[in-house]
Amino acid sequence: MSLPADFHSWAHAQQSRIESTLQGVLPSPDIAPRRLHQAMRYAVLGGGKRVRPLLAFAAGELARADAGRVAIAGAAVEMIHAYSLTHDDLPCMDDDVLRRGRPTCHVEFDEATALLVGDALQSLAFQLVAEYRLADDPAVQLEMVKLLAAAAGSRGMAGGQAIDLEAVGKTLSVPELEFMHIHKTGALIRAATLLGARCGNSLDDRALGQLDNFAKCVGLAFQVVDDVLDAEASTATLGKTAGKDAQQDKATYVSVMGVAESRSLAGELRQEALKALEEFGDQALRLRQLADFIVLRKF
Amino acid sequence: MSLPADFHSWAHAQQSRIESTLQGVLPSPDIAPRRLHQAMRYAVLGGGKRVRPLLAFAAGELARADAGRVAIAGAAVEMIHAYSLTHDDLPCMDDDVLRRGRPTCHVEFDEATALLVGDALQSLAFQLVAEYRLADDPAVQLEMVKLLAAAAGSRGMAGGQAIDLEAVGKTLSVPELEFMHIHKTGALIRAATLLGARCGNSLDDRALGQLDNFAKCVGLAFQVVDDVLDAEASTATLGKTAGKDAQQDKATYVSVMGVAESRSLAGELRQEALKALEEFGDQALRLRQLADFIVLRKF
Repeated sequence: MSLPADFHSWAHAQQSRIESTLQGVLPSPDIAPRRLHQAMRYAVLGGGKRVRPLLAFAAGELARADAGRVAIAGAAVEMIHAYSLTHDDLPCMDDDVLRRGRPTCHVEFDEATALLVGDALQSLAFQLVAEYRLADDPAVQLEMVKLLAAAAGSRGMAGGQAIDLEAVGKTLSVPELEFMHIHKTGALIRAATLLGARCGNSLDDRALGQLDNFAKCVGLAFQVVDDVLDAEASTATLGKTAGKDAQQDKATYVSVMGVAESRSLAGELRQEALKALEEFGDQALRLRQLADFIVLRKF
Repeated sequence: MSLPADFHSWAHAQQSRIESTLQGVLPSPDIAPRRLHQAMRYAVLGGGKRVRPLLAFAAGELARADAGRVAIAGAAVEMIHAYSLTHDDLPCMDDDVLRRGRPTCHVEFDEATALLVGDALQSLAFQLVAEYRLADDPAVQLEMVKLLAAAAGSRGMAGGQAIDLEAVGKTLSVPELEFMHIHKTGALIRAATLLGARCGNSLDDRALGQLDNFAKCVGLAFQVVDDVLDAEASTATLGKTAGKDAQQDKATYVSVMGVAESRSLAGELRQEALKALEEFGDQALRLRQLADFIVLRKF
């Protein structure tokens, strides 16, 4: 199974778009406090697959959303993602020195700066969602702020990190592992997808519910594949330290069910994700392809 | 100069109100992830003067705002404040073990949890401002999200922290010191005051501008007094480690201009703050008293 060239050129175009949006909304490195602004740009602009913005763009296409609006929403989600990576790499968390093939933020700058980088990126994410016009109705836009805040908070992504901390050294069941990942990575992937759709006007609540089911499956598949890659790929391919999970005695799909069963679970989640899109026609093409991309990726 | 008993009973009533609001909006310690939620409550509910919510209530009275709305806005600001204290106390920042007379969050729990506590409190602040109805017009409420985000971010509070880091061991001029504090503590004090007023409907842009001038002076006075107290008061009175600034070679008003001149500066800023309120009548009573309270406080 492989993806058509057409998907890759679409993805490449959206990645360029999100990159220039991020460039534009991040504070200039020439504005005080300069070192903080340089470090914020370092943490965000270091590449990455931009999976969350891609999902936002694909969901935006489904909802006939203005791509300029989706770019801002996608940039906000990417700020939250980049802040979480920056904090996650700190010595008191995963203590990692390599990210996207480069030194992590606290190695390149210092720990205190990396802490502030994450803090300021989170603020900037909410500033973006409140400052730009992302929906015709300001009440819908307030809903978008709330959705992003809930996805980032203690019952979303930050909560998933806390569950992850508590799980170190413990044997988790598959449902416990799923609970952790629905929070840790799933919440933000769902937020990206729904925010992209909310930038448009064309989806009713039922359709948004289907889209949410899709995103839930894709989010979990993303994590399962991440665990397989961490166990199998090399540091050079990943651009981040490989084999860290086993080394840190972390509960992963691979440690709980092995590589083969993990791969097969990822395939099932892909099927379930595609099923959630059944009622949508051609406009869900990019979402379908993203489900494939997430399961087939090698990095 | 001393404050009338009537002020103290007003302040006490507002402190009780904000305390019960914070109690209510913080996630229950029985909900997973339990340790994170316990630690968030520990970081926020540990007392404190609640100066920012008091400013919000006083500005809300000026703007005839509903006190229930102001309590949510004040709680959101207090979440941002508590997150910044929690992160500021971490070993990679000020490395402090005592706050409000108790062990700091990372001492009572652990560093990773304290990091996540701060992260999740920031998300919760924005969730509150987006979730509750704080203004009749959702567009005004979006403005409130933006105002809080800008005050918290790299050109507000987090930026002030970064400037503070860069200043360690350097001799700052008074204007440089002022620039640092306008960001570090001033931005959030201004946001608290303006958000309180925005919960009401009765102030025009000119009045909001006057209120902002008031808050700017009060914010700076607050910091000047903080520096004096750090140099003069005891750890027991402050409930946090005294004398840390000198020990950490931090630039403070006391180190730059001495205690006597710092006290006199605080008095001048109080006068300027009161001048900004001249056009308001009796409804600015609590704001005037708060300016006095901030300059006269002993802890």
